[in-house]
Amino acid sequence: MTIRVYYEDTDVGGVVYHSNYLNFCERARSELFFQSSRSPITLNGHFVVKEIKANYLKSAKFGDLLEVKTSLKNIKNASIVMHQRIFRGDELIFEMDVKLVHLNHKGEVALVPEEDKQFLIDMIGVLE
Amino acid sequence: MTIRVYYEDTDVGGVVYHSNYLNFCERARSELFFQSSRSPITLNGHFVVKEIKANYLKSAKFGDLLEVKTSLKNIKNASIVMHQRIFRGDELIFEMDVKLVHLNHKGEVALVPEEDKQFLIDMIGVLE
Amino acid sequence: MTIRVYYEDTDVGGVVYHSNYLNFCERARSELFFQSSRSPITLNGHFVVKEIKANYLKSAKFGDLLEVKTSLKNIKNASIVMHQRIFRGDELIFEMDVKLVHLNHKGEVALVPEEDKQFLIDMIGVLE
Amino acid sequence: MTIRVYYEDTDVGGVVYHSNYLNFCERARSELFFQSSRSPITLNGHFVVKEIKANYLKSAKFGDLLEVKTSLKNIKNASIVMHQRIFRGDELIFEMDVKLVHLNHKGEVALVPEEDKQFLIDMIGVLE
Repeated sequence: MTIRVYYEDTDVGGVVYHSNYLNFCERARSELFFQSSRSPITLNGHFVVKEIKANYLKSAKFGDLLEVKTSLKNIKNASIVMHQRIFRGDELIFEMDVKLVHLNHKGEVALVPEEDKQFLIDMIGVLE
Repeated sequence: MTIRVYYEDTDVGGVVYHSNYLNFCERARSELFFQSSRSPITLNGHFVVKEIKANYLKSAKFGDLLEVKTSLKNIKNASIVMHQRIFRGDELIFEMDVKLVHLNHKGEVALVPEEDKQFLIDMIGVLE
Repeated sequence: MTIRVYYEDTDVGGVVYHSNYLNFCERARSELFFQSSRSPITLNGHFVVKEIKANYLKSAKFGDLLEVKTSLKNIKNASIVMHQRIFRGDELIFEMDVKLVHLNHKGEVALVPEEDKQFLIDMIGVLE
Repeated sequence: MTIRVYYEDTDVGGVVYHSNYLNFCERARSELFFQSSRSPITLNGHFVVKEIKANYLKSAKFGDLLEVKTSLKNIKNASIVMHQRIFRGDELIFEMDVKLVHLNHKGEVALVPEEDKQFLIDMIGVLE
């Protein structure tokens, strides 16, 4: 998942506005599904962000080409933890752990469909 | 409707990113309703943007306090045209005409409820 | 220039938030330069949006793949007018004329460098 | 610091897009300075986000009025840790610890000016 930094992503400090790295990571999570002709909105519901632990290591700038790498840290009945890193070339500029909870269409916590679970494990493995 | 310019609104050029003026105007349109304990989502539907004609006169900067002034130019059965201007103090920095169409919950063009029509006329008048 | 619609681009209405189409068009303008190993920030300055006339024809949805097509309508000493259209497949969903003015690093109107002018004409032609 | 949730803050899921809570917190940090006729851009430099630990407890919706409460957890020579919580009425919906590092105009880590340190302690105290 390659992402270009455009004007809209930067701020007056001359670098990418801090919350946009979260957006880049979310694009990569959604694109996992889209690339396999699936939607991140599952039959039963969808995932929402529950916890984030993020480290900002370097600043990305206008015009930079960034790559987002996503791996699965943990998968449970109704939640998953992903580890996401953003690189500019070989340089790691951002990393975060994000815990997602699966909600049904009423907004209640709900089991991740078995098929989506398997899909995620096949796509991005389990690290630990 | 007073709006502060924050980091998120600016870009690497040091000024407000051009599309954010449209967001400021949308906040002002929504706030018209909220200020009167109503919602821009009406009983029958909601408004969507159909046309925009915008002029950028000056640049707003980080920390600026802006004021959005909204008036009604025209109101029809299923659409309205508003004129919106953004000021920094006495200085006009942006203006636009925006045509909004009223859609029902299926996404079809639908009459603006008479009560909402009257509400808008009472709140922001008709210029022409 | 192909653009995927992500969560961040949508709003509670279920479709792309209206000002984000302007962002998509700006990405396409910047990408014109990046694709040729140039920057939209020229040696002398950069372009800012002066006028926009936009028509919203259809709504784009989460997961849609959009294409932005850009052509040059007009080029003058210190300004250019581009015509930009956004398609979903064969379907035209948005179009706008955008007038850009070239500013130097002090923020004053400044000649578009001859080389950048030629570059734009070569890349996206002149319609009228 | 009271913040209204507008269309632009929501996504197709019907609630506030997750990274926008970070924006709301940043507005509150900047507003601390603006309210005292200061700028978050200090004489020597400015603050950038280094680490974030965030918990999402409830979802905010279109039209909600949110309040951001900010306190100082820790202040060092070149960095500060703030604890920020977002409430809807009495209900806590989001909280995070954010570590900010002070950079000079060259982008190097630099001492927080003594005066700004004192200002922050006076404004939002030290919890631990």
